Amino acid sequence: MTELCIRGCHALVPDAHGTLSIARDQDILIQGSRIAAIRPTGTPLEPQVTVLEGQRMLAIPGLINTHAHVSSVLFRGLAEDVSLERWFNDFIWALEGNLTEEDVYWGAQLGLIEMIESGVTTVADHSFFMDQVARAVEEAGTRAQLGWTSFSSRGPAALAETAAFAQRWKDGAGGRISTRMAPYSPYTCDDGTLRATVEHATRMGVGIHIHAAEEMNQTLASANRRGRTPIQVLKDTGVLGVPTLIAHAGGLMPQDLDLLARHRAHVGIAHAPKTSLKLGMGLAPVRALRKARVPVGLGTAGAASNNTLDLLESLRLLALTQKHDALDPEVMPVAEALDIATRGGAAALGLGAQLGTLAPGYQADIVLVDIQGTHWQPPHNLLAGLVYSARASDVQTVMVEGRVLMKARQLLTIDKVRVLEEVSRRMERLARLEPGSRIQRYAP
Amino acid sequence: MTELCIRGCHALVPDAHGTLSIARDQDILIQGSRIAAIRPTGTPLEPQVTVLEGQRMLAIPGLINTHAHVSSVLFRGLAEDVSLERWFNDFIWALEGNLTEEDVYWGAQLGLIEMIESGVTTVADHSFFMDQVARAVEEAGTRAQLGWTSFSSRGPAALAETAAFAQRWKDGAGGRISTRMAPYSPYTCDDGTLRATVEHATRMGVGIHIHAAEEMNQTLASANRRGRTPIQVLKDTGVLGVPTLIAHAGGLMPQDLDLLARHRAHVGIAHAPKTSLKLGMGLAPVRALRKARVPVGLGTAGAASNNTLDLLESLRLLALTQKHDALDPEVMPVAEALDIATRGGAAALGLGAQLGTLAPGYQADIVLVDIQGTHWQPPHNLLAGLVYSARASDVQTVMVEGRVLMKARQLLTIDKVRVLEEVSRRMERLARLEPGSRIQRYAP
Repeated sequence: MTELCIRGCHALVPDAHGTLSIARDQDILIQGSRIAAIRPTGTPLEPQVTVLEGQRMLAIPGLINTHAHVSSVLFRGLAEDVSLERWFNDFIWALEGNLTEEDVYWGAQLGLIEMIESGVTTVADHSFFMDQVARAVEEAGTRAQLGWTSFSSRGPAALAETAAFAQRWKDGAGGRISTRMAPYSPYTCDDGTLRATVEHATRMGVGIHIHAAEEMNQTLASANRRGRTPIQVLKDTGVLGVPTLIAHAGGLMPQDLDLLARHRAHVGIAHAPKTSLKLGMGLAPVRALRKARVPVGLGTAGAASNNTLDLLESLRLLALTQKHDALDPEVMPVAEALDIATRGGAAALGLGAQLGTLAPGYQADIVLVDIQGTHWQPPHNLLAGLVYSARASDVQTVMVEGRVLMKARQLLTIDKVRVLEEVSRRMERLARLEPGSRIQRYAP
Repeated sequence: MTELCIRGCHALVPDAHGTLSIARDQDILIQGSRIAAIRPTGTPLEPQVTVLEGQRMLAIPGLINTHAHVSSVLFRGLAEDVSLERWFNDFIWALEGNLTEEDVYWGAQLGLIEMIESGVTTVADHSFFMDQVARAVEEAGTRAQLGWTSFSSRGPAALAETAAFAQRWKDGAGGRISTRMAPYSPYTCDDGTLRATVEHATRMGVGIHIHAAEEMNQTLASANRRGRTPIQVLKDTGVLGVPTLIAHAGGLMPQDLDLLARHRAHVGIAHAPKTSLKLGMGLAPVRALRKARVPVGLGTAGAASNNTLDLLESLRLLALTQKHDALDPEVMPVAEALDIATRGGAAALGLGAQLGTLAPGYQADIVLVDIQGTHWQPPHNLLAGLVYSARASDVQTVMVEGRVLMKARQLLTIDKVRVLEEVSRRMERLARLEPGSRIQRYAP
């Protein structure tokens, strides 16, 4: 029995060939947490159905941020225009020494507000004090795949604690939260740690979320020190044998592509173009990965590098930079870019059967985008509008599992005023660079 | 005598060394059309001063779009994911055959609305039916440098008509409009046309605005056909001898850089990163041009390629892509990117003594940016915020010559509802691709 209807919207849906296209003037019917039907508007509705008017709105699947450090919004703007080494050693890994559990709770809420306001309903987060992030996600009503960051330097007991988190929250928030093990990277985790991580993951039936081959210098350093590329390290330690989400991958070698292709049934890539551009890391070879049918989704990484958590911006950068690197404007057409931002992200997280598509049976994670702004006019081409004109500020209404989290840009589940106050109060302390507070050293 | 005060804002101003920085809690005093003073807030104001409250706003110089085809917003989204040749021959130069004078008037207004709403106060426009654009700019209250596009194929009489436009409007709208001759490009204008253009420009004391060396294939084609690069053609025909604004310049050779450096006193480059990325044209060598002290400003080009006229987006793309192409995150720091978007643009247009800087004596073209959005929090770094977090929707208030054109996002000089209706009414006809309507052929 239909409970909710988004009436009269345009909708981003797969056409008969599976290509994303715009269906105009549709009703989206929702029953429980799922989409029950999508049909041309006009059929009278049962009297008990709650109606959400969707005229002059474009409905899209809730966007999926496949790689973020949500609470690092607290450090937005503190590490600009510096080398990758200084970014880690002089800034981020020093600043993260300032974080308390409470900071992470408020920072996670700030990041969730920013994502809801920009149409992101699911995030894969790789950070510290993850119980606080889980608590914030549970309260906000969004969806997340969470992993507690680990380094070899912290030893096996700390690794076991991150596994305990993964166990504690693996079907959390009524199924909206899933978990992964989260070793930081091959350059901070030795083979033993990676093998132990795989054991934990296998035992619990969860996956792994890891940074690897972020840029080519890391790959060359790994080849020098370990005699193998970072991706070969993941293969040798068993990481590629479990569901694994790899962030960045700007430094892949041809043999790495072959390895990833062989494990594509359960391996995905989180492409975070803004952070890769800003830190000069080079971009993941998205076209080659797609050709090899390795799932690729879009991510922001943290606001300490990206400055925002705006996935629409990352979508635009994906399309523009693929064309640029190829010097070919026919590369990465709008429908393919949208596929990566929606179905690609869901597949990379192993959730492709439930998320990322507006179709009956999928979760009702739906975002309504206002297409009336000047920058959309005249509306010759809504697909191109989504990729090249849409702004986060066009997002009007956001729902997860059929529950409305934001309506007409008003947040319904988070106390934004309180969050901004708490963040403001912490701002000065969090920006202090204390000597010796560094939590880890970058030396790939 | 001060007439207007923007009270208590933060302001983007040059510091003692000329580097752009943030002065906090300032009053900006305006007398007539100019800035009279910028000083810390707190001094009592004379009773006759009109106060515009600027708390929690960041004041920046009105942004300068150094290269656009304003009315081509009418074709937004109609030419996606196609080669440059098809973009011209199958789409844009065919679609432009549909344009009437009235279309251009309404299209120009739509483009001006989009620019005001995103903080652009000055635009260099290179299009057809330019009296209509001038009329729209005059009514909107913005500032523009206008040129009527010419091709050799139209003959000397048509060229003379474009010169007559330049003469008619050269000090138009009380000085807010200046003009340039606007030969489309070396690949559509032969040496004779370019020389005749220079004669017209010299006679009237105006400059030239031209597309040249947009991408490397054009440069190679010019070398093959004419035995010279496009920039050498400009030199040989005298174009570099008058004030000249060159759009795109993604296909420069080392000797071209030398030529441009030699003429830097009156030559500027309009760098339009989004269009260059999207059409796979390669980027102007911004760092080399800056090192040679050739003025570089930011442009959008038309919405038929860019999809928006959003200069804040182009600013972000400038910084991100310079870092990316160099694979070096230290390249193009935030203050330099902001310098290009403000002072660089003014210098490229030959208006550096009047525009692009918040300082006494400069024109009071000022934009107030709301820095309270979630994506700015916490506000550790407002300079980085402008480059990496700001959205067009953050622009609240826009003034030109001290006259407020938009306040709290309400337009005061253009009837937006009427403009959207007129554009909507024309939309279907303008999208028709009529056989044989092509106005020019792309074959560099």
